[in-house]
Amino acid sequence: MSGSTFGTIFKITTWGESHGTGVGVVIDGCPAGLPLCEADIQQYLNRRRPGQSRFSTPRQEADEVTIQSGIFEGRTTGTPISMAVFNKNQRSSDYSEIASYYRPGHADYTFDQKYGFRDYRGGGRSSARETIGRVAAGAVAAKLLEQMGIHFLTYVKSIGPITCDPSLSHASEIENNPLRMPDAAAAAKARQYLDDCMKAQNSSGGVVECIVSGVPAGIGEPVFRKLDSELAKAVFSIGAVKGFEIGDGFEAAKATGKDNNDAFYYDENRKVCKKTNHAGGILGGISDGSDIILRAAFKPTPSISAQQETVNRNGETITIHVKGRHDPVIVPRAVVVVEAMAALTLADLMLADLGARMEYVLDFYKKR
Amino acid sequence: MSGSTFGTIFKITTWGESHGTGVGVVIDGCPAGLPLCEADIQQYLNRRRPGQSRFSTPRQEADEVTIQSGIFEGRTTGTPISMAVFNKNQRSSDYSEIASYYRPGHADYTFDQKYGFRDYRGGGRSSARETIGRVAAGAVAAKLLEQMGIHFLTYVKSIGPITCDPSLSHASEIENNPLRMPDAAAAAKARQYLDDCMKAQNSSGGVVECIVSGVPAGIGEPVFRKLDSELAKAVFSIGAVKGFEIGDGFEAAKATGKDNNDAFYYDENRKVCKKTNHAGGILGGISDGSDIILRAAFKPTPSISAQQETVNRNGETITIHVKGRHDPVIVPRAVVVVEAMAALTLADLMLADLGARMEYVLDFYKKR
Amino acid sequence: MSGSTFGTIFKITTWGESHGTGVGVVIDGCPAGLPLCEADIQQYLNRRRPGQSRFSTPRQEADEVTIQSGIFEGRTTGTPISMAVFNKNQRSSDYSEIASYYRPGHADYTFDQKYGFRDYRGGGRSSARETIGRVAAGAVAAKLLEQMGIHFLTYVKSIGPITCDPSLSHASEIENNPLRMPDAAAAAKARQYLDDCMKAQNSSGGVVECIVSGVPAGIGEPVFRKLDSELAKAVFSIGAVKGFEIGDGFEAAKATGKDNNDAFYYDENRKVCKKTNHAGGILGGISDGSDIILRAAFKPTPSISAQQETVNRNGETITIHVKGRHDPVIVPRAVVVVEAMAALTLADLMLADLGARMEYVLDFYKKR
Amino acid sequence: MSGSTFGTIFKITTWGESHGTGVGVVIDGCPAGLPLCEADIQQYLNRRRPGQSRFSTPRQEADEVTIQSGIFEGRTTGTPISMAVFNKNQRSSDYSEIASYYRPGHADYTFDQKYGFRDYRGGGRSSARETIGRVAAGAVAAKLLEQMGIHFLTYVKSIGPITCDPSLSHASEIENNPLRMPDAAAAAKARQYLDDCMKAQNSSGGVVECIVSGVPAGIGEPVFRKLDSELAKAVFSIGAVKGFEIGDGFEAAKATGKDNNDAFYYDENRKVCKKTNHAGGILGGISDGSDIILRAAFKPTPSISAQQETVNRNGETITIHVKGRHDPVIVPRAVVVVEAMAALTLADLMLADLGARMEYVLDFYKKR
Repeated sequence: MSGSTFGTIFKITTWGESHGTGVGVVIDGCPAGLPLCEADIQQYLNRRRPGQSRFSTPRQEADEVTIQSGIFEGRTTGTPISMAVFNKNQRSSDYSEIASYYRPGHADYTFDQKYGFRDYRGGGRSSARETIGRVAAGAVAAKLLEQMGIHFLTYVKSIGPITCDPSLSHASEIENNPLRMPDAAAAAKARQYLDDCMKAQNSSGGVVECIVSGVPAGIGEPVFRKLDSELAKAVFSIGAVKGFEIGDGFEAAKATGKDNNDAFYYDENRKVCKKTNHAGGILGGISDGSDIILRAAFKPTPSISAQQETVNRNGETITIHVKGRHDPVIVPRAVVVVEAMAALTLADLMLADLGARMEYVLDFYKKR
Repeated sequence: MSGSTFGTIFKITTWGESHGTGVGVVIDGCPAGLPLCEADIQQYLNRRRPGQSRFSTPRQEADEVTIQSGIFEGRTTGTPISMAVFNKNQRSSDYSEIASYYRPGHADYTFDQKYGFRDYRGGGRSSARETIGRVAAGAVAAKLLEQMGIHFLTYVKSIGPITCDPSLSHASEIENNPLRMPDAAAAAKARQYLDDCMKAQNSSGGVVECIVSGVPAGIGEPVFRKLDSELAKAVFSIGAVKGFEIGDGFEAAKATGKDNNDAFYYDENRKVCKKTNHAGGILGGISDGSDIILRAAFKPTPSISAQQETVNRNGETITIHVKGRHDPVIVPRAVVVVEAMAALTLADLMLADLGARMEYVLDFYKKR
Repeated sequence: MSGSTFGTIFKITTWGESHGTGVGVVIDGCPAGLPLCEADIQQYLNRRRPGQSRFSTPRQEADEVTIQSGIFEGRTTGTPISMAVFNKNQRSSDYSEIASYYRPGHADYTFDQKYGFRDYRGGGRSSARETIGRVAAGAVAAKLLEQMGIHFLTYVKSIGPITCDPSLSHASEIENNPLRMPDAAAAAKARQYLDDCMKAQNSSGGVVECIVSGVPAGIGEPVFRKLDSELAKAVFSIGAVKGFEIGDGFEAAKATGKDNNDAFYYDENRKVCKKTNHAGGILGGISDGSDIILRAAFKPTPSISAQQETVNRNGETITIHVKGRHDPVIVPRAVVVVEAMAALTLADLMLADLGARMEYVLDFYKKR
Repeated sequence: MSGSTFGTIFKITTWGESHGTGVGVVIDGCPAGLPLCEADIQQYLNRRRPGQSRFSTPRQEADEVTIQSGIFEGRTTGTPISMAVFNKNQRSSDYSEIASYYRPGHADYTFDQKYGFRDYRGGGRSSARETIGRVAAGAVAAKLLEQMGIHFLTYVKSIGPITCDPSLSHASEIENNPLRMPDAAAAAKARQYLDDCMKAQNSSGGVVECIVSGVPAGIGEPVFRKLDSELAKAVFSIGAVKGFEIGDGFEAAKATGKDNNDAFYYDENRKVCKKTNHAGGILGGISDGSDIILRAAFKPTPSISAQQETVNRNGETITIHVKGRHDPVIVPRAVVVVEAMAALTLADLMLADLGARMEYVLDFYKKR
């Protein structure tokens, strides 16, 4: 069944495999009249590009995007926006080995079980290259949201056991270090930790945090398309994510109502505000006007060069060393993927809200 | 926009408010020929019914379900199954107070922001009574899955700071204590903790864990309808959920690849197995044949009788005491809701897998 | 798979069988704040009610609707609107005969082929009673559209070989005759024709025409959700429909471009108008501001008391007489069903248009 | 809102404009293991290619398709199949004239009304080149169906006033004449008729008929996703279609029940058959095992070089001559588009039927 489509009004469909012709996405449902060019997309893709530091795969891929439709005279036309990144750096590798066995922590076994066979070259459809389509589409969603005053701040919250201290964190630091951590001291420790991991032919997990500011109250569709529910789906669809939180997340389960409830008050402009934001900006599945705060836990990169046990398709239990150019930690490059999925979710739900009230609808049609 | 529908093939639509005529659900897409009667549904609903212990609201609601369509001669017909629970215990309360202000931690404010007004009686659509429809539908999904050898074990993993010790936990204990904790010693401590909370006019959060056994490898649709992605959405659509994990969840973010990768091996029946299950039964968004393990973090019940600050609709900041019959902790009653959402997700994705391969499709049509 | 849901934003799900507990519908996605009460629905349902003349089944069914959710203080709340009509006039018939064979022109055989068995009482889910849910939902859609100045004129265009003459037709005549024909002379001829049919234990087909005025230009979503495409689907989902046309329909296939093209001009208010309306108000799948004109061809009622050949489930070819209380012609009662489906389609697509342009979206969020 | 996606399980999304980079389609949900190569697609595309005779536009476009994903070792992998045809023959025309006014019978005016502006080059998204994506996807659907013994016979039934005589029609004749009419005598007359049209700077409408054989009984999902309802939507989404029929279509509205009912009987193999097929192979929205028969009425090509009245964007009523290379009749090239849409609909609904009965589902999972 089809699973490569995300969204309902602002809808995207991705395609492509790691070592095929390329990867791409079709956005359908973007409103007409949004200024858009390839540079808007490229700057987003550059944030996920490999080869940015010694902590990501040394593969060199320019990942240059082409917009193939849906733009005329510099603006979206309301029709599908097709974008593609054609693959350039496929090594003419011998894949016969990887074809025969199942890498632990990867989707090799499960794709074979589902489809009967798989495109094993570089992970095929389950490769992280699949996220290029999401990021390209997320760039469009983010640009749309930016025009409404909505901004994203996304960064690495922790790598392995090292966590950023909020009181020492600064947004300006995020792009200053290759790990995209807002706390410079934590980043330094994490670098050392990762160097040790790499020496041990090992890899590390981590946590990405995303804060969305400027979302008006009222976004999210009860009861199954709640804002948090859709964000959970969106972020959990990224490979390697194993946990997701809104606001205080799992800490809320340990708290009491007195501590966890956010008191309302009126600010000087007679606007309803909250004294705290344990809720992470969402109440009853609908945005409350505070910052949306979400976190995603990523497992360690499963591709490690240390020896591992596994099975092959001939019924044998074997030991392998996964070769190739792999990231020792995925979260620095995953930052923009999380942001893209959050942007896509918000764009879709904000368009969904346009018809929430008869007064909006009547007002709209009165003017036409 | 419509948000009360869940699923694609096995699709449900819920309706109803806390203090209206009733609550209900329409299931569309259930295969024909499943034996089904009201008792199958009722036993599920009884697990979420209030008044089961001093730790849940003392409201007495029988929550008796009626099946209104889709069954003939004791079996599903393939047409929509409509089920309703009509409300009986609406107190003829004076709601004028609650109508005027916004309870902290509730959806009062956000519903008003979204829709312009709200049915404030008992929380209206954002009441936990809304979950009756999900649980009724989940009972049907669970019965369908049971016929394929799939079983659920769902329980309270922790309440506030008290967590069950896996080595002391027994499935047989779960229904022996009103908190539905598998570890009797933890349950005793949690009771004491909750008694203290109640004395302090306070409430507690908690964690629900669900283990699904018998799911064959191959379930889940890459890339946006991954099994974990759909489970995340399903569980996060339950009110009060703030965190969700699969397998090791956030712990995986602290781990290394060597520790987190699950080694494959062949068992004595030449079946592919995993030595460990850090992945929680899902690789690349597709089930791997191991147990599916998921956890949901619930925030503390926001309705507490202690004094709180908030605002009213007249622009005043006020102090309130939330009156009424409330649960000091929601997780014991939420156990069956989590199980229902997991069952609905699995039923939908297992039906989606029927067309995954041409050989399945050709085999099917050869026999017709 | 689920097929009982229609629409994307204004979405309905119907349920129920002819001789079960009842029939109903859940509307999800209706904007909040629409004034609505049961009388709004009932007047629509009364137009399809049986027993209105000697040309419809003499069954007496009040078909009283109950609204079960989604309304508070006389207005829609934005949450699902559940409506039900409980069955009252089920005859305790002996259905053993009908259970055993397949009535020609009915869905008995195909339901058995699809689901393995069927609820054979009164046609079960394939009964025309299923349309009650559509009509109830259509009443809500029509009320919503009425507030935007959109009106429906729906009537019987022809019965068997007798067709209304447009030059002799008057809207005021439609409800003056039981056949709902706008041309009184044609109605008189059709009555005679139907009386002859009934004497011959026979039945007649007919054509329903619907004209929608007030639809602004711009409604319809290219390329697969064109306004005409969605109307075609909507109307063709009514049982017994075998043909559908927009504007000149099949006549356009015989015409030339010179005759069929509608010339544009500016009227005295500088509004773009068309000199003719061969297109039926739709160009490129999008409304052009002219009246939307559609027609549906209904086959003759398949239930006739004359002797027919068919097969039974025991492998025998047999002759039968279909007993029961049947309509000799369905179109007079189908008028409101066509109108309901057109209203549902338009309501859904008009809500879809709210996000068509960035300027609309930005304008909307500027005001929030 | 997104309208460029069709289907639910076998789902396609098209993109592209007449004079942009190209046009394409992404198929998501095609079962894994279907043998597929570009030649399979190309032969379908060649049937809609322009320049095949003097009765179609003299534009020379090779319309060569590239498969960009979803195929490995000659078979579909179950992941999205992306296909593109890059535009080659864009004339560097001066479009300033066409940009300023609205061609009668085209979507120029309605696109402007909907989106505020439009890609006016060659009709942009509303160009018939958009159908390339459908036809490419339809080729895949048709190949899938062929493996189940399902075949399509599609042809031109009439052009203007000239209709094929069924008793003189032969399938073998269809590809023998450029008008794709099965009746050679009618084809000769139609040629003459079209030559006269062209001399008069005029164009003609026509009717396409499609007969699908080999569809098993049981396909179609009541009540809104009936087989006929989905076919109506599919075919009506093709530009220029103004009417659609199943079986006897509008003739059924003139008939009586005695004439229109198809009697069932058992054939020598104890198979249920029908003596006639007025129903066109569908009863109650579900296939009955007979041939599926459908017809689509196409309006005359609106692009005619004769003088026409229209308006421009400056508020003036003007006269124009539509220049360019246009088809005097569209139906010969539309034959394959109708067939493609029918194939896409059937593929989707046949996959939907896999889960219709518990016995199917249990049987499937027993074998896994």
